[in-house]
Amino acid sequence: MNARILDTTLRDGEQTPGVSLTPDEKLRMALKLDELGVDVIEAGSAITSIGEREGIKKITSEGLSTEICSFARAVKVDVDAALECDVDSVHLVIPTSDLHIKYKLKKTRETVKDLAIESTQYAVDHGLLVELSAEDSTRSDIDYLTQVFKEGIDAGAKRICACDTVGMLTPEKAYEFYGHLSKLDAPLSVHCHNDFGLAVANSLSGLRAGASQAHVTVNGIGERAGNASLEELVVSLYSLYGVKTNIKIGMLYEISKMASRLTNVPLQPNKAIVGENAFAHESGIHADGVIKKAETYEPITPELVGHKRRFVMGKHIGSGLLKKRLEEMGLRVDDEKLNQIFTRVKALGDKGKCVTDVDLQAIAEDVLGIVAEKVVELEELTIVSGNKITPTASVRLNINNNEVLEAGIGIGPVDAAIVAVKKSIADFADIELEQYHVDAITGGTDALIDVIVKLKHEDQIVTARSTQPDIINASVEAYLSGINKILSDKKDIKKIKEGDL
Amino acid sequence: MNARILDTTLRDGEQTPGVSLTPDEKLRMALKLDELGVDVIEAGSAITSIGEREGIKKITSEGLSTEICSFARAVKVDVDAALECDVDSVHLVIPTSDLHIKYKLKKTRETVKDLAIESTQYAVDHGLLVELSAEDSTRSDIDYLTQVFKEGIDAGAKRICACDTVGMLTPEKAYEFYGHLSKLDAPLSVHCHNDFGLAVANSLSGLRAGASQAHVTVNGIGERAGNASLEELVVSLYSLYGVKTNIKIGMLYEISKMASRLTNVPLQPNKAIVGENAFAHESGIHADGVIKKAETYEPITPELVGHKRRFVMGKHIGSGLLKKRLEEMGLRVDDEKLNQIFTRVKALGDKGKCVTDVDLQAIAEDVLGIVAEKVVELEELTIVSGNKITPTASVRLNINNNEVLEAGIGIGPVDAAIVAVKKSIADFADIELEQYHVDAITGGTDALIDVIVKLKHEDQIVTARSTQPDIINASVEAYLSGINKILSDKKDIKKIKEGDL
Repeated sequence: MNARILDTTLRDGEQTPGVSLTPDEKLRMALKLDELGVDVIEAGSAITSIGEREGIKKITSEGLSTEICSFARAVKVDVDAALECDVDSVHLVIPTSDLHIKYKLKKTRETVKDLAIESTQYAVDHGLLVELSAEDSTRSDIDYLTQVFKEGIDAGAKRICACDTVGMLTPEKAYEFYGHLSKLDAPLSVHCHNDFGLAVANSLSGLRAGASQAHVTVNGIGERAGNASLEELVVSLYSLYGVKTNIKIGMLYEISKMASRLTNVPLQPNKAIVGENAFAHESGIHADGVIKKAETYEPITPELVGHKRRFVMGKHIGSGLLKKRLEEMGLRVDDEKLNQIFTRVKALGDKGKCVTDVDLQAIAEDVLGIVAEKVVELEELTIVSGNKITPTASVRLNINNNEVLEAGIGIGPVDAAIVAVKKSIADFADIELEQYHVDAITGGTDALIDVIVKLKHEDQIVTARSTQPDIINASVEAYLSGINKILSDKKDIKKIKEGDL
Repeated sequence: MNARILDTTLRDGEQTPGVSLTPDEKLRMALKLDELGVDVIEAGSAITSIGEREGIKKITSEGLSTEICSFARAVKVDVDAALECDVDSVHLVIPTSDLHIKYKLKKTRETVKDLAIESTQYAVDHGLLVELSAEDSTRSDIDYLTQVFKEGIDAGAKRICACDTVGMLTPEKAYEFYGHLSKLDAPLSVHCHNDFGLAVANSLSGLRAGASQAHVTVNGIGERAGNASLEELVVSLYSLYGVKTNIKIGMLYEISKMASRLTNVPLQPNKAIVGENAFAHESGIHADGVIKKAETYEPITPELVGHKRRFVMGKHIGSGLLKKRLEEMGLRVDDEKLNQIFTRVKALGDKGKCVTDVDLQAIAEDVLGIVAEKVVELEELTIVSGNKITPTASVRLNINNNEVLEAGIGIGPVDAAIVAVKKSIADFADIELEQYHVDAITGGTDALIDVIVKLKHEDQIVTARSTQPDIINASVEAYLSGINKILSDKKDIKKIKEGDL
């Protein structure tokens, strides 16, 4: 068995309330989808706007081998807009439920069927491949629906698609429904929405029942609760059903990140396959199992989808993971010390805290009596900012027992503070702030803020982090923590520095 | 048919990497779960830590009628910890797959079965109700698994549970697997993980096949891709299968919000049932349909689950929704003006922008030649902060041509600035900052920062937004923009205010 994938991220996905891509962003996404190996890219709905048509045209002018499709209602003006964009095919959609026909279109079944046939003929006559699609098909009279499809196929439609527009199918009903339609004389697409969390299961059922193509979006985005998620469907087909697609599975994490960035729709950490926690382990039992043999708690390897395994510390931590983590930090501990560290990590967890590497390092150093050699220490940070003031920061740092004072201005107070610190150390180490990341902050203005920085010095890259309610303090602390990690690793730098100061 | 719900948000849910609740937070969540109507609350794993036991004890000391349960491994020390917390029952878990027995426990099948029986007897002898649970049951030898359950039931286990620990079931396999186990002499629980996005579909299959209880978590949180989501399962049972539970469905949105806030695990907007977009509509076709008759694009009413319908504007907008929205803003437009506004909203969408109420207001006012009356204007904002300074902000506002000066302190400079503004307007309007959201910031410290705030005044909720490189200025501007929207709508407030100043 083999399943085709029509990706509608750039149409149904872009209909996610609040999402809008520029023509250039549409093109970037389409190129990535082409590389991923989808069979059809539904690039948009040409009638929507000038920018939408510009985006679709940019995509069709690339001359990709992937079929490029536009959504169109069963009206001439929509088909004309699609033609203007030079697409290969139209996803020609007509509602078939009485609810839609009566209340939305205010027409009769007969008129709607005629529109479907006429617009199919019109599109076919103008050289377009037509996938004739029934909206709200799962709440339609099955005889009427079948008749529309039959006449549509006679009129030249090359594929048919039945949309579960409000996601009301169950896997059992999907099997029966798509099984029936797959007997018709054209390849059948499943198009499932996720209102009850069943879009992927229903799509799988439809494919098992005889459909040959599934409509999906990256990350499952779309109107309301979205569409069937590309990554969940494809990996389920691959791992659970042994069904092949043309998708390069190893690119799934990368394309998920890209879609999330472009659309600005965040993923919840527990999103299957591509969420940040999809391969993260905290509890003692789980982490211990994964360290011994990954299969115990991982159904697939993170590498399969281009993702990474991650261990997180907190109150559920087991001693196995803790010991492994300490060793990675270059700290060897006996059982008694391990137990002391273990107790303190759990206590921090009991306070509702997530335990970061920086926390663990501090606890371990305290228990082991190590006086951490911090090359650079923050003595004082002051910032002044506002709407009529140039954001200004001053820092007093202790660098190897020498006091260094610096000031900086920036585009905002965080930027000013980082500029000031950077100037303080510029003489002896050229450390670049490669990446600055603050997780989405939701809640109140007193929420904890988690800052992660990536610093680069020559060929070394380090990551450091700080979690605090104040974004400026968190940013400076994370930055300094990274600087100290680099400097304490580089004895030669310290020498230069002592000479310099 | 009737299904029981065991909620494991406070155990499996809390095992979400990075999540830790304090004992008081655990109690608050348990009280809400009790009110929601779950049949069993798995309150934690007593062996985890002192704080965990303190949390479970707080819950059991409330004397709720709901069964309170602790997770326990099949070892005496875990059962003792559960007993110490005075729970009603234990979810007694033993791995049954060779993979877990061999690599994780390094034991034999025989020893593991003996442990299961011994610890069941021990727990039963000490007055606990035992739900004997097989970890990784779906990758276990079915004869061995059946034997463990049979002997466990003979030893006094009152319920059995089969865990799909790494989420590898399909709906078809789940039907066969749980159907087989439901023939044994004890009620059966399904416990499904979401690694392939199938946890809810598999749980539904298990219940259809004869299981009588489902393990779920609020929002589907948990290790990796999480567990079956309570809200998706319960609403699917209710709406698609006509199966009753004891859950008060109208509380689902509220409890989802609470869980997200306490655990700090955000929901993606397209999360089924409870996501912010679950009942949001943007595209012209959809919004137009919903305005005419909601059922066209909503499978259930938002009110059913305590949620709200929302219309969002962007490039997919239709003129029907736009007109409705303008009327809600108190703006009556003729067709020509409507068309001008329509074109400008689409153009903004084409630039990749989400069109907020604030944007629409600005466009409409410009087209209609209205000079917007800002009740509150920011004249001056100054903040001072640092690592040894209490974050302090002063604001000078022009409120209806009166100058108001205020200062505030906060946990960080953003908080201080918001506190100062809030104090300035406190006399005449009690406006709550319901939600503060900053999108993830990635790039440099000079990246643009997008702040969205949701403000509440009496029964009115408004959203406002500002995008700037300085997080403090962006936060204050978004907040003031929301305040102005509320105040310009409320003529009576303005009067009170003029009297006050």
